[in-house]
Amino acid sequence: MWGDCDAAGIVFYPNYYRWMDDASFLLFSSVGLGWNELRARYGTPGAPLVSSHADYRAPSRFADRLTVESRVSEWGRSSFTVAHRFTRGDVLVAEGWEKRVWVTFDADDPAKIAPAPIPDEVRAAFAVD
Amino acid sequence: MWGDCDAAGIVFYPNYYRWMDDASFLLFSSVGLGWNELRARYGTPGAPLVSSHADYRAPSRFADRLTVESRVSEWGRSSFTVAHRFTRGDVLVAEGWEKRVWVTFDADDPAKIAPAPIPDEVRAAFAVD
Amino acid sequence: MWGDCDAAGIVFYPNYYRWMDDASFLLFSSVGLGWNELRARYGTPGAPLVSSHADYRAPSRFADRLTVESRVSEWGRSSFTVAHRFTRGDVLVAEGWEKRVWVTFDADDPAKIAPAPIPDEVRAAFAVD
Amino acid sequence: MWGDCDAAGIVFYPNYYRWMDDASFLLFSSVGLGWNELRARYGTPGAPLVSSHADYRAPSRFADRLTVESRVSEWGRSSFTVAHRFTRGDVLVAEGWEKRVWVTFDADDPAKIAPAPIPDEVRAAFAVD
Repeated sequence: MWGDCDAAGIVFYPNYYRWMDDASFLLFSSVGLGWNELRARYGTPGAPLVSSHADYRAPSRFADRLTVESRVSEWGRSSFTVAHRFTRGDVLVAEGWEKRVWVTFDADDPAKIAPAPIPDEVRAAFAVD
Repeated sequence: MWGDCDAAGIVFYPNYYRWMDDASFLLFSSVGLGWNELRARYGTPGAPLVSSHADYRAPSRFADRLTVESRVSEWGRSSFTVAHRFTRGDVLVAEGWEKRVWVTFDADDPAKIAPAPIPDEVRAAFAVD
Repeated sequence: MWGDCDAAGIVFYPNYYRWMDDASFLLFSSVGLGWNELRARYGTPGAPLVSSHADYRAPSRFADRLTVESRVSEWGRSSFTVAHRFTRGDVLVAEGWEKRVWVTFDADDPAKIAPAPIPDEVRAAFAVD
Repeated sequence: MWGDCDAAGIVFYPNYYRWMDDASFLLFSSVGLGWNELRARYGTPGAPLVSSHADYRAPSRFADRLTVESRVSEWGRSSFTVAHRFTRGDVLVAEGWEKRVWVTFDADDPAKIAPAPIPDEVRAAFAVD
């Protein structure tokens, strides 16, 4: 969109991370585990970031239509990585990933969060037969 | 800044509102009543918007240095208006205002907020002798 | 989305303006007059803002699904107003408008833009029989 | 600032990249080579991103005061890396880097940009005696 572009008329790169964040939420929502559901079911207040990374392959301009494909590329004990690919038609525009940590509120101090093991059923929700 | 500009190379207008929001916080902070202080002292979780408005007088471009001057232009019983002027040197770039409401958490339901009378000492903090 | 919310967990108000800007583009695109088409056909580099305004009726929270309805509410000689209504189901969340000016590049100095009369066929494109 | 935080009340992570972009510009400006100067002197329209990365060490909250320290950590023939460290007092909040490419407009097609060798005097401007 217009405001997603910078003074050079191409997408301002932090927006790719905003879209990765959106895409991770939509990916989890697609298996019934959006952030609100995670909170209600497991007490996990979102999935904070450990690291994020992106490689930019081709510029995108105003009114370009991009597709983002996202998948959990790695499951750890209490962290997981979501990989994202942005394409415009056949053109690879950008690739990136977010490493996120599974957290729960501290039982003793609800203002604090701490890493926790990812429940098996969360992993299972993404399993492909 | 670079990312504040749009594909036409001028400031993307929603950023003026972002800066008004920042300026209102800084204005209140300047008299010791930043949002965190309001929450601690009065239980007011921020100051939600009723309306906002802006008139754009001249475009701004990347690397321009803008000044924003802000003041409470009107006090109501439970609402107040903050007026903002953006200038670049002698040039008036934009003018706007935010009407905000003073709220407190509902005593019966802490998930709800409700308008409340603005404490006299808040008004007094902005009084000019 | 997650990043559209502020520290109070509700939509950060400048985002409504970002969405109005998106909606104006989509409205014009829907009649074949997106900003790129305007530029190609009439040499108009976007439609700069004169004023903008919004009234906030109800807060929106993360994962809420909003609808925006937009229409040109007024045509002037060289300016026009786009009115926007944001709803969540039956609830009116926010209303706003953008007054924009029709501009073309200056024939003598292509770095400058100047207001110009809105072409009749642009008005006509929005006419409802 | 208020709008930099997300629904969990902590800084929305794409903002760190926005601040890295700002910091790179300010770093280059500090030696007289801001983006506008680069364009005027060398015809380089900004410094597009190749890759970016960040590691998040500690959350930041509304009204926290962060410091960013930035330096060119690597010079290549036509690319360079800017490293950034975000701290809050003694606490390391985030670390990241941006790999950027030096480009000039194509002589034959001014709508195209192409990587070009970084001028020696640009490297020299950052040399510490």
